[in-house]
Amino acid sequence: MQQLSNRHLLGIKDLTENDIQLILETADNFKEVINRPIKKVPSLRDVTIANIFFENSTRTKLSFELAQKRLSADIINFAASSSSVSKGETLIDTVNNILAMKVDMIVMRHPYAGAGIFLSKHINAQIINAGDGAHEHPTQALLDAFSIRQKYGDVAGKKVVIVGDILHSRVALSNILCLQKLGAEVMVCGPTTLMPRYIKELGVKVEHNLRKALNWCDVANMLRIQLERFEIKYFPSIREYSMMYGLNKQILDSLDKEITIMHPGPINRGVEITSDVADSKQSIILEQVENGVAVRMAVMYLLASQYPLV
Amino acid sequence: MQQLSNRHLLGIKDLTENDIQLILETADNFKEVINRPIKKVPSLRDVTIANIFFENSTRTKLSFELAQKRLSADIINFAASSSSVSKGETLIDTVNNILAMKVDMIVMRHPYAGAGIFLSKHINAQIINAGDGAHEHPTQALLDAFSIRQKYGDVAGKKVVIVGDILHSRVALSNILCLQKLGAEVMVCGPTTLMPRYIKELGVKVEHNLRKALNWCDVANMLRIQLERFEIKYFPSIREYSMMYGLNKQILDSLDKEITIMHPGPINRGVEITSDVADSKQSIILEQVENGVAVRMAVMYLLASQYPLV
Amino acid sequence: MQQLSNRHLLGIKDLTENDIQLILETADNFKEVINRPIKKVPSLRDVTIANIFFENSTRTKLSFELAQKRLSADIINFAASSSSVSKGETLIDTVNNILAMKVDMIVMRHPYAGAGIFLSKHINAQIINAGDGAHEHPTQALLDAFSIRQKYGDVAGKKVVIVGDILHSRVALSNILCLQKLGAEVMVCGPTTLMPRYIKELGVKVEHNLRKALNWCDVANMLRIQLERFEIKYFPSIREYSMMYGLNKQILDSLDKEITIMHPGPINRGVEITSDVADSKQSIILEQVENGVAVRMAVMYLLASQYPLV
Repeated sequence: MQQLSNRHLLGIKDLTENDIQLILETADNFKEVINRPIKKVPSLRDVTIANIFFENSTRTKLSFELAQKRLSADIINFAASSSSVSKGETLIDTVNNILAMKVDMIVMRHPYAGAGIFLSKHINAQIINAGDGAHEHPTQALLDAFSIRQKYGDVAGKKVVIVGDILHSRVALSNILCLQKLGAEVMVCGPTTLMPRYIKELGVKVEHNLRKALNWCDVANMLRIQLERFEIKYFPSIREYSMMYGLNKQILDSLDKEITIMHPGPINRGVEITSDVADSKQSIILEQVENGVAVRMAVMYLLASQYPLV
Repeated sequence: MQQLSNRHLLGIKDLTENDIQLILETADNFKEVINRPIKKVPSLRDVTIANIFFENSTRTKLSFELAQKRLSADIINFAASSSSVSKGETLIDTVNNILAMKVDMIVMRHPYAGAGIFLSKHINAQIINAGDGAHEHPTQALLDAFSIRQKYGDVAGKKVVIVGDILHSRVALSNILCLQKLGAEVMVCGPTTLMPRYIKELGVKVEHNLRKALNWCDVANMLRIQLERFEIKYFPSIREYSMMYGLNKQILDSLDKEITIMHPGPINRGVEITSDVADSKQSIILEQVENGVAVRMAVMYLLASQYPLV
Repeated sequence: MQQLSNRHLLGIKDLTENDIQLILETADNFKEVINRPIKKVPSLRDVTIANIFFENSTRTKLSFELAQKRLSADIINFAASSSSVSKGETLIDTVNNILAMKVDMIVMRHPYAGAGIFLSKHINAQIINAGDGAHEHPTQALLDAFSIRQKYGDVAGKKVVIVGDILHSRVALSNILCLQKLGAEVMVCGPTTLMPRYIKELGVKVEHNLRKALNWCDVANMLRIQLERFEIKYFPSIREYSMMYGLNKQILDSLDKEITIMHPGPINRGVEITSDVADSKQSIILEQVENGVAVRMAVMYLLASQYPLV
């Protein structure tokens, strides 16, 4: 059986193109599974997975949990708010304690960039990064790639624009890396104040005009605007952002071709995207959510299969 | 196999008498199941149910969860406090996202009356209302009816008084509707300020004197007083309420016949009911809790069986 | 099959030496189980256990949950913060409601000393005390004894010093009782202000000098310092405590023999114990965590087997 080149999934950065293709092909199979009447497989029976969330999350946590249940894994949930973390325990001690209870795999969300990488150097279990600060969110990028591939047959050669707050977005960074490894052309679009300084080094096109970006692309991935960030003064206001970068039906219908609309959720309807766009036929937002379960099943299955149990 | 006339359980209002009888008879079977050493049946294996609670709840949530486990369903728990809801996502988006992960049934508690009805018009899964604001709480009414039927053999012809804050109580409304459909006579008892204006239209007797109400009835359902509401000035104070409508052993023993005492819980001992009444032989409060699991198993089983899985 | 002499595990106080030996020997078997690729046994299939935590806890709750999953029990989790407790319900009512749903066993943590004992007199299920105020924490003491026995073959005759805040520690009290019943010699070490007045009555040696205590013992159990207590004025300050009773590598290496270091966790690195001690070869802190799952499996298995299910 083919295996991933790495024993963790810390970021898209560490994956080869082959790794990504293997994950997507494995996810094809699991997508079939979760659409059957019997949605479960016994693949990860006797594998214990701990979901360690140091930040709130709804869809990512539910998606991982459902993927684990579909794989028949044993699940332990650990939320930082009700934990020893508030008693001053270090991250490594917290995780080592969980591991000492014979946990095989860790799914971790953490507010600090690089938390998973740090942890992987000090502990013995397999780690899946479910979002580390503004750094990476690899399973989101993989499910986005899977959704584009499902729509177009292939990611290679597709033109994808990522619109919004590129600076603070782990979704943007992971998506750029993943799409490039699969041979897509990537553009980012948003105000200068929401672009990282190193953006040119990532090898992406940069466009500040939304209409131009949309006319160029096959797929537009509209990032969620994190309303709380917009209190900072030098950003555009939300109203300004929405006027310049919000996508509505009128713009969508005025484009030369039918583009595909993606969004990592949760949606601020009327801010980065209007309701008629979110609910239009061109939107594959709910397919992304569905594919998320299949892709996460694939990732956990492939990592677990590096260590044959019997 | 017989089926419910509706694919959701949004309120008692939508149920026919046949529906209710079918639920109660099905619950008879499940009550046997949960009293066996092996309390589980595989009936809902491969059905995934999401418990979505936008309001805190202990007993209702635990009761649904245990009912789901006894039915071997897969369970996803979603609490609003740790969720995207605080990030401004709409209710429909939240639920659609959960559904996109291949969830078959939704159990929802929501602070707004009609939230389940609204949702049922926009989504594709089956919905069970676990309490929507001051509107309905259908599974509570069903378990109350089940408990009366268990005690007396039949609900028809029984005289039931509901005592307390009728105005703000979803338990009261669902109970009135359910008991009437099953042929019971229903009276409400409480201060005028805690009666809804439309109370006469519900076809119930209204009595403001507790002793008269108790002398009339076979069964008294003592509603919980929500202490927090009593800060509003024009209500009776808690002390006044307790003096006029609190049930103690002395009153109970002075009645002409032995009536049955019910309470939806949690009890404020010494407010709406004293300890010696709550713990007396006439009280069936803990039977209500036990029956709740069986009734909820019946509801989920009957709804799921509308969509044969294999 | 041998059985425990008590149907609850409320404290070490109620256990005979035979009981403790039986638990430790049973835990030997379960330790083997959780180190196999297939970590589950069907022993508690169809037993429903409610974890009722009126106080936050990470490791104890996770450890019980994992033990329950390894035993194939059905699990209901109840956290006080999201519960009816805040609505003024009594402890007995809360627990009776859970029991009415056909729960077989209760694992309870409560901030008040004696909460489990009180409860055991009023309810019908088996109760395991997972920590009651500053009173007892029996499963912690059992896993500590198991860990010492694993290291030395036997607890009898070993010299164990418990260092720290003896006054407020349920871990200290349960450990003293357990170690004495197994024939160990026990010393406590700490400042006078953190010693209970009745300490002499417990039959332990008292030593205020850390170096002397360490030179005497085979095993040092370094209690966690609860930082929040140290705001009270007449205690030593944390800095003073750490200087006088904190264990560092220099002290450890200067002792005449190699002692074993234990800690109930979570560790305040640099306060009661430095990192190089916590991570040294002499430390068995993570073994304690691992053993905790096996010991809790043994306790639940032995209690459940008093009531044969079929």
